[in-house]
Amino acid sequence: MPRTDVAAKATPLTRLRRRPDRGAYDFAALAAVLDAQPLAHVGYAIGGQPLVTPTLQWREGSRVYWHGSAASRMLKAAAGAPVCLTVSLLDGFVMARSAFNHSVNYRSAMLFGKAELVTDPAAKAQHLERMVEGLFPGRWNELRPMTAKELKATAVLSMAIDLGSAKLRQGPPKDEGADLEQPVWAGVLPVRLVTGAPQDDGKLKPGVSVPDYLTRFSFG
Amino acid sequence: MPRTDVAAKATPLTRLRRRPDRGAYDFAALAAVLDAQPLAHVGYAIGGQPLVTPTLQWREGSRVYWHGSAASRMLKAAAGAPVCLTVSLLDGFVMARSAFNHSVNYRSAMLFGKAELVTDPAAKAQHLERMVEGLFPGRWNELRPMTAKELKATAVLSMAIDLGSAKLRQGPPKDEGADLEQPVWAGVLPVRLVTGAPQDDGKLKPGVSVPDYLTRFSFG
Repeated sequence: MPRTDVAAKATPLTRLRRRPDRGAYDFAALAAVLDAQPLAHVGYAIGGQPLVTPTLQWREGSRVYWHGSAASRMLKAAAGAPVCLTVSLLDGFVMARSAFNHSVNYRSAMLFGKAELVTDPAAKAQHLERMVEGLFPGRWNELRPMTAKELKATAVLSMAIDLGSAKLRQGPPKDEGADLEQPVWAGVLPVRLVTGAPQDDGKLKPGVSVPDYLTRFSFG
Repeated sequence: MPRTDVAAKATPLTRLRRRPDRGAYDFAALAAVLDAQPLAHVGYAIGGQPLVTPTLQWREGSRVYWHGSAASRMLKAAAGAPVCLTVSLLDGFVMARSAFNHSVNYRSAMLFGKAELVTDPAAKAQHLERMVEGLFPGRWNELRPMTAKELKATAVLSMAIDLGSAKLRQGPPKDEGADLEQPVWAGVLPVRLVTGAPQDDGKLKPGVSVPDYLTRFSFG
C-alpha cells in the first residue's frame, strides 16, 4: 500500500482548514481514522445545495468505499461528481477553566475526490465481501451468496485517498495564567463508542450461537 | 416552540431521499435527534466543492446553532450560504441471514437552510451559555465571564429548523422465506456512545471535586 503524500495535493484546500496546528497530512493518519470508525458523512453538492448523508465506509488499501441502493438518485448523481467524505470520532469533552478554552478531543478525516461507481458485478461482490469481513471477520462465508438481482440493486462507490486531511485534538485543556486560579473542575470527560450484548431476532435455527466476531467487535 | 411542518417545505428535496419508508418529516422527530447527539456534520459547497466538517451543534427552540473561530474563512463563507447540517447516531449493526439484508439501526436528522451569523456580542454570549448549559447544566456560572476579545474571536452561526428530514431504522433484521432456514446468527449488535470516568488535569485548586453534571451526562 503506497503512502500517499496528501499534503502535496491538498494545496487548493488548505485555506479551508480551521486550525493549521491540528492538521496531519499523511496517509497513515487518514487511514487510522477511517479504520477506527465505519460511520462516514458524505457531502455532495446538487445544484449548489450541499447534502450530507450518513453511510458506512470501508477502506481497501489506498481507496475508500461506500454503498447504497442502486435506485438512489443521489448515488447516481454522485458518480463522477466531487464529493467530500468525512469520518469523525468524538473522544471527549475538554472542560477548561474558561468557556473560551473548552474544546473537544476528536479524530477526523476529511477526504476530497470524485466518486467512481463500481460497475462489474463480480467486483461489486468482492468489495461488499471486504466490507462485511472488515467489520465481522468470518461472516461472509456463513451467508448464502448474493444473487445477481441483489448485486444489481446495490451501488458501490469508491474514491482514491489522495486529497484530504486528518485532524485531531487529544489531551487536557490548555488553561493559562490567572485562569488556573479558578476553583472549577477542569479536565476531560472521555467519550467512546461501545457495543452492547448481541440481541438475536428470536428466529435462530437450533444450535446457532453468538459468533466470536460479534463479541470481539470494537471501535478503534 | 412552534411545531414546524417541515414536510410541506421539503418538497424540492424529497427526491433525494434514499428510503421513503424511513422518512419522518416532523419537528419533534428532528428535535429528538438534535438533542440526543451534539456532534453534527455541516456541509458547505465552496465553488461546487462540497466540504463536510464535524462540529458541535445545539438547539434553541426552532433553531439550531454551531460555532467556531471568527478567523475561519469557512465560517465566514458559510454565512448566508446554503448549508446542510446532519446529525447521526449509529444505534446498531443489523445482522441478517443474507448480506443484502444487513443494515444498521440509526437515527439521523438532515437540515437545510441558510446559515446566519450572530453579530451582537451579548447575543453571542447568551447562545454560548445555552450551549454549555445544554450539555453541562450549572457549569456556565462556575466559569469567569467571557471577555470582549474572546467573544470577538468566536463566530456563532444559526439556522432555522424548517426544512429537512429525520430518518431512523430500529429493530431486528427482516429476513424472509428460504433465508430463514440459514443456520447463521441473526439479530442486532447494539452500539451506543458512553462517557468514561472524568480525568482531571492535575491542576485543580484544593477542594474542587468532580461536578454532578459530568457524572450525570449521557447521550440520548
